[in-house]
Amino acid sequence: MNVKFINARILGEVDLKQLYIKGNIIHKISNIIQEPADRVIDLKGKLLMSGFVNAHCHNPMTLLRGIKDDVNLQTWLFDYMFPNEAKLSEEDLYYGELLGIAESIRSGITCIEENYFSCQGNIEAIKKSKIRARFGITTERESDDFVKDFDECLISFKDSNLIVPSIFIHSIYTTSEQEIMEQTAYAKAHNLPVSIHLSETLEEVGECMTKHNQTPVEYLESLGFFDRPATAYHCVHMDKDDVKILADYNVNVVTCPSSNLKLGSGIAPVHTFLENGINVALGTDGPASNNSLDMFKEMYLCSCLQKAHFYDSSVVSASQTLKIATENGAKMMGFKSGIIKEGYLADLIVVDINKLHYYPCDNMESNLVYAGRADDVVLTMVNGEILYENGKFNLGFDLDYVIKKCFEIRKRLEK
Amino acid sequence: MNVKFINARILGEVDLKQLYIKGNIIHKISNIIQEPADRVIDLKGKLLMSGFVNAHCHNPMTLLRGIKDDVNLQTWLFDYMFPNEAKLSEEDLYYGELLGIAESIRSGITCIEENYFSCQGNIEAIKKSKIRARFGITTERESDDFVKDFDECLISFKDSNLIVPSIFIHSIYTTSEQEIMEQTAYAKAHNLPVSIHLSETLEEVGECMTKHNQTPVEYLESLGFFDRPATAYHCVHMDKDDVKILADYNVNVVTCPSSNLKLGSGIAPVHTFLENGINVALGTDGPASNNSLDMFKEMYLCSCLQKAHFYDSSVVSASQTLKIATENGAKMMGFKSGIIKEGYLADLIVVDINKLHYYPCDNMESNLVYAGRADDVVLTMVNGEILYENGKFNLGFDLDYVIKKCFEIRKRLEK
Repeated sequence: MNVKFINARILGEVDLKQLYIKGNIIHKISNIIQEPADRVIDLKGKLLMSGFVNAHCHNPMTLLRGIKDDVNLQTWLFDYMFPNEAKLSEEDLYYGELLGIAESIRSGITCIEENYFSCQGNIEAIKKSKIRARFGITTERESDDFVKDFDECLISFKDSNLIVPSIFIHSIYTTSEQEIMEQTAYAKAHNLPVSIHLSETLEEVGECMTKHNQTPVEYLESLGFFDRPATAYHCVHMDKDDVKILADYNVNVVTCPSSNLKLGSGIAPVHTFLENGINVALGTDGPASNNSLDMFKEMYLCSCLQKAHFYDSSVVSASQTLKIATENGAKMMGFKSGIIKEGYLADLIVVDINKLHYYPCDNMESNLVYAGRADDVVLTMVNGEILYENGKFNLGFDLDYVIKKCFEIRKRLEK
Repeated sequence: MNVKFINARILGEVDLKQLYIKGNIIHKISNIIQEPADRVIDLKGKLLMSGFVNAHCHNPMTLLRGIKDDVNLQTWLFDYMFPNEAKLSEEDLYYGELLGIAESIRSGITCIEENYFSCQGNIEAIKKSKIRARFGITTERESDDFVKDFDECLISFKDSNLIVPSIFIHSIYTTSEQEIMEQTAYAKAHNLPVSIHLSETLEEVGECMTKHNQTPVEYLESLGFFDRPATAYHCVHMDKDDVKILADYNVNVVTCPSSNLKLGSGIAPVHTFLENGINVALGTDGPASNNSLDMFKEMYLCSCLQKAHFYDSSVVSASQTLKIATENGAKMMGFKSGIIKEGYLADLIVVDINKLHYYPCDNMESNLVYAGRADDVVLTMVNGEILYENGKFNLGFDLDYVIKKCFEIRKRLEK
């Protein structure tokens, strides 16, 4: 189906434009487009922009949302997260992933970096949902042959043009030196990028210093991890040398400000990363440590936490933040998306800007980052297909049934 | 008009209840209420809670929303805020205040602490709007007889049962020692509480130390400021002795986390205030430094910034945060509101909890603070009167006209 948007105010532009979406591509942007389309959508009074790229999430953790808040990190992890995760079946993961994706699409997220254990249930859900994704293949529970698992998982990507694989190593504190090296070698052999949770907490850094007399970044460098195209999630506790290493190796950094606050981890030096030319993307992390999938909340924090952290209200501008929330994530995953431009993938959203919380400001970058709300999103298009529009979903699954199943799973967990 | 809510899930309670609102009071809460009401509202599947108390705002700054972001604080203040504020007439303030109040009511705010220069336009607007408020009387522009101004302003409160006065001294860096003492004496003579912006930035503390060899808190104590019932806004940079003084004098602290981030001021030690038994309330500050009037955003930050600041995810729980956002603000202003209880003022809101971002969690305190959104509010009642319901306002003014006027004012400012 081809869609034509008319009277489109594209973020960052002044004049209203017409956009012609041919299949899954932004085919043409012009003042007037003559080509007839299957559907014409008038965007008068609304804003069109690139969809958000949620560059780090664990969507099935919707199932654990709010299951225990306001306890210390160790209690949260060892008494609530790990035991409950152990109870989740592949089918549970499938429904949890779908619920998270529905919330994402409603909130204007068109592309996700999914990092959760297990392959089958998650990938099946992502495929079904029609969202764009990079999926981090990681070691299965109760398995000691990761090569077999990874090989099997890789097959799942063959018939999809929306999902690409990467190799996801959970962290240096849950993975042995040998495993890190072997899995990095696997990534090299299959020409895949790698990713890892890195320097998220002071404890992680302290333990690594004690054990290896190296920071986690230095330690991973010594293992050859950064020789692959790499992404590091969190990066809260970094010294100057760490930042230099990440910059030298062109490592992508994904900051997850909400999660870092709520888990008591700290504030990542995003401003320093940007100053060093690092490609920074933005993620929500899982809905058990956030507790939502709302890139507007993340954008506000991504910018404003830096202003407070550096006591300088000029750092990490609205314009930089929007790039971090869209373009940079797409770049990290290798998708030709995240920008409203001819020839790019049609992953875009429409925002209703006729809202009290925007009036009377006409600076839309400022409005979106500092006053914007996820509920302002009125249309979400992924790969040229409209998946959400004015309260109605067009998903590849029955959302009501998914919700019902998720409540049942939760009830079972809480028994 | 008397309203009966049926099937009401009251925040913090398990069983569904009926509430009978008689005039402006929560008259009865029970399983079944026989009294007939003018209107019966079925709240099945929704949550009823106390309305939010925005304990520090400058609503007319809606007019300056996003007029200049991402510059340093000095440039923002001296090149953008002060020159533009100087151009605002009483009529402008009136419309700006109304716009801010409309946004507030839409977002579930039922009571505000308004602190903006000038009296006439602001108070007229607050009266018109039917929101509950405490208004800080402060020195007028271009006036050197504050007693005459304060006396005149006090008259405005005579015919209102929704607004009460206080004496608002802007700050120690904009007000002379003599003025602070004279205005505090005025407050004493008229039996009024006092309030002030306090220790908001490192610069403020540094200057005060240089000038007086005292912290701002010690300095105000020495002037007898805290001998009146007092409220201090911001309180970002506080040492142990400062906190002890605030606690000893029962000073109310209003934290404004969004604004403190966006202006690069820092993170207030709210957890320490609470540990010291201080009554902490929550505010948005003005929409030029926020840039919205969204107590859900403030709640998330109020709790989660503390978790990161103290590296402890257990501090400032969802339950404490909800109290800070409602009850504590009402207590500070002396209103019998902020709690859903028989005999209390009927300032309440209804939240739609059938939302993807809450599923499948049934812990509503957690949901509201960590995943809640202002758009979930579907009904706002102040003093027994419904001012907003399902997209429709019932305000004492023509909102469309107010919006039009505010855009005109903004256009004039940006010329």
